[in-house]
Formats: sequence, structure tokens, C-alpha cells
Amino acid sequence: MSGTLYGVGVGPGDPELMTLKAVRIIRAAPVVAYPAPEVGDSMARTIAAGVLAEGRREELPLRMRFTADRVSANAAYDAGAAAIAAHLAAGRDVAVLCEGDPLFFGSFIYLLGRLGGGFPVRVVPGVSSLMAAAATVPTPLAALDDCVAIVPATRSEADIERAIAAADAAAIIKAGRHLAKVARVLDRLGLLGPALYIERAGLPEERIRPLAEAAAEMGPYFSMVLVNRRTGVWR
Amino acid sequence: MSGTLYGVGVGPGDPELMTLKAVRIIRAAPVVAYPAPEVGDSMARTIAAGVLAEGRREELPLRMRFTADRVSANAAYDAGAAAIAAHLAAGRDVAVLCEGDPLFFGSFIYLLGRLGGGFPVRVVPGVSSLMAAAATVPTPLAALDDCVAIVPATRSEADIERAIAAADAAAIIKAGRHLAKVARVLDRLGLLGPALYIERAGLPEERIRPLAEAAAEMGPYFSMVLVNRRTGVWR
Repeated sequence: MSGTLYGVGVGPGDPELMTLKAVRIIRAAPVVAYPAPEVGDSMARTIAAGVLAEGRREELPLRMRFTADRVSANAAYDAGAAAIAAHLAAGRDVAVLCEGDPLFFGSFIYLLGRLGGGFPVRVVPGVSSLMAAAATVPTPLAALDDCVAIVPATRSEADIERAIAAADAAAIIKAGRHLAKVARVLDRLGLLGPALYIERAGLPEERIRPLAEAAAEMGPYFSMVLVNRRTGVWR
Repeated sequence: MSGTLYGVGVGPGDPELMTLKAVRIIRAAPVVAYPAPEVGDSMARTIAAGVLAEGRREELPLRMRFTADRVSANAAYDAGAAAIAAHLAAGRDVAVLCEGDPLFFGSFIYLLGRLGGGFPVRVVPGVSSLMAAAATVPTPLAALDDCVAIVPATRSEADIERAIAAADAAAIIKAGRHLAKVARVLDRLGLLGPALYIERAGLPEERIRPLAEAAAEMGPYFSMVLVNRRTGVWR
């Protein structure tokens, strides 16, 4: 009998935003894997550190350069998947810790692609940084029959504009290094005024400002811009 | 000192998908409010029933016809907000239980609009049914630099097509009564093949089928269609 591969969402950063199910699965897992930088702490592991401190288990950090190109990222996922497969084949469950949700821009997707065919898989959904950012303000993400666009700020200016133009509400993720571009697009669409820029939502160093104030700056990767055409008229 | 209004996401249905923070806030709250149908059980209350059974607190169901027009819905929110305001003014915290996440298509948005200016507000984000649906399959929602469209199936065929055409991945929510329309749009965009139809994700009666098989049927309100242009090529 092979083990089960668990993709476990540990939420956006606050350990209290782990679900009861995530805590139970992590507690019971004989092997825990997590993405980690080449040197230093894994954010996913840090979120779950309190649970991991309760017992002993094998830990499998999947180390990768944050700025890795797809070729080296794929090599790292290949190696990580092989190490996980060995545990699964030996009958040991493996819980892969994932910041936020495992299947929403999560690195678990690449392990699922490699291991999903060969082993039983269960995914424990997690609170996304999208919802954490809105909660921090607090401001509605979307209501009623809003169309929502979630747009990585790494996309071209034309792609970003097209996606937001087709929506009533938008979250522009990974925004930190692209604030000027995002602000230009929103200004053209008449949406710069209500746009909020949120850094590290839900973490102790979180910060919220109007995008118009932050547009000339550079921010961190974990940051997003939220905007809704209806903000202020929620009745 | 007035009480604090908490918007508490209780997740998509499985009580184990409540966060540790949601459980703590509900446990400590002297008053718990929740949306409820005119007659019968509140889904949000049902999810939290295990925590509520642990102690005694005042319960405030906000009863509303599921199919209410905006005028009667607004009257119900006005009355609910007034009852909550009386508790807050008397110094009692009120936890409003919300299916999924409070600020993502949640009825908490209308209480926030009415009470947010007058009282301290804290929002506890929750696991969205979007993430629960993807976990159920499991299938990736989005990865890398995907643009994602979240589209209520109640929108016009043209609106749905425009939003999905501008995206790489889409979740069409509230899909059950609009499957034929959604299937027509996805077929025109060449996306009917990979589209999955998911009913009541994460609940005991959940069901997953290719949309092409379900397109001629009617399903429940709590259902969605997931599609990604890259499904199958996650490497």
C-alpha cells in the first residue's frame, strides 16, 4: 500500500489562519515537504512551525532559487518529486506545505503534475492571500454579479488592461515591482482613484496605501493591488 | 466602549475547513449572527454548529428569502444591521458567520457597508468554495502568470464570453441553472473539452463531471465550472 500525497494549504502567513484539517494532516504526517529558498527559512514551514514542534517527523525541504528560470525550477521539482515518490512508495504519507492555497498559483501544482498519476492525492484548500488582503483593509473583493479578474503584474501592459477592462473588480498580484505599470493601466481605465496597494497582507509588517501614493516606488513580491468599480456603494 | 463586529469566514462547508482563528473568535463571541433562509437551517450556522454547541451565546439569525429582490434584501440587511448595532453599542462583540470568505461574494459585505463606519470591524478570511472546488478534483486553478476570470453565470452570454476570452483560466460560479449558456460560450472559445462541472464541492453530496456531459441539465446554485487553457501541461 502506497502512502498518500497531501497538498496542504497553510494560509497567507498568520498561523491562526491554518484550517483545523491542515493542522490534523500535518500532525499525522510522517514526512513533511515544503518549498524553501536556497538558503534560509521556508515561509510555508514557518507558518506551520508551531504544529511541527509538537512531534518528530522527517522534513524534506524542496530548495530552489526564488528567481529560478523554468528549466532549473523543473529540475528542482523533478528531484523533489523523486524524493517524495520514494516515501510514498514505501507507504509513508507525505504532506506538502503550501503558502495560501495549493492549487491557486501554488508550487504544489508542479508536484501534482509529476506524482498525481502514480499515487493517491488529497488536497486541503487554504485561505488565499487574496482574501487575506481584502480582510486586512477590510474591503469587498466582489459582490452580486461582479466579474473578477486576477492578474499577475508580470504580464504585459496590454494584457493587464484587457483583463481588467473585461471585469468589475480586479486583484493585481505579484505587484511590488510593477506598480508604475499597474497605475498607468488603472489610470487609463479611470480606476486609479479607488485602487489600494497592500503589502504582506496579514503579516506583522503589512502596509496599506492608495496605489496613487505608492506608484513611484518598488515593493515586495508578496503584494497586490485591489480595485472594484463599485467600492463605496455596497448597498 | 463599543463591541467589535467580526466577519468570520467559516469556509465552504466541511467544518474542518474552518480556521483556528474562526473557531477562537466564534468561541469567545457573546453574540453570533448568520444569514438564514426564511424557514430552516442556516448553512453558515451548520458549519459552525460544533463550536456553537460548546457554550451559550445569543444567536441572531438574519432571515431572508433566498430569491429576494434587492429591495427586500436591503430591508432585511437594514433590520439585521440595526439588531447588531444595538449589541455593539452595548459593548458586546458580534461574530457574523459567513460561508466561504466574508468579502468574496459574501453577505457580510452589506453589513460592513451599514456598520463599518460606526464600529470597529475585524474580518477573518475563510477558505473559498473556489479553492474547495479545485481541491475536490484536484485540478490547478491557475499557475505562473495566468490571468484568471471569476464570472457569475447569471451574467449575459456576451459578458461571460468577454471575461473568459481575456483570461487563461476561469471559474464560472453560481453555474447550476445556466449550464447550457456556459457550455455554449466555452464551446465557441474552444474550451468545452477541458471544462469541469463541480456541484457542492467539499460537501458529502459533491459531484464532478465534464461540463459537456452536464450541459443539458439543471444543477444547484452552489456549483461551478472550472477551466484552464493549460490543463494537462503543468510542468
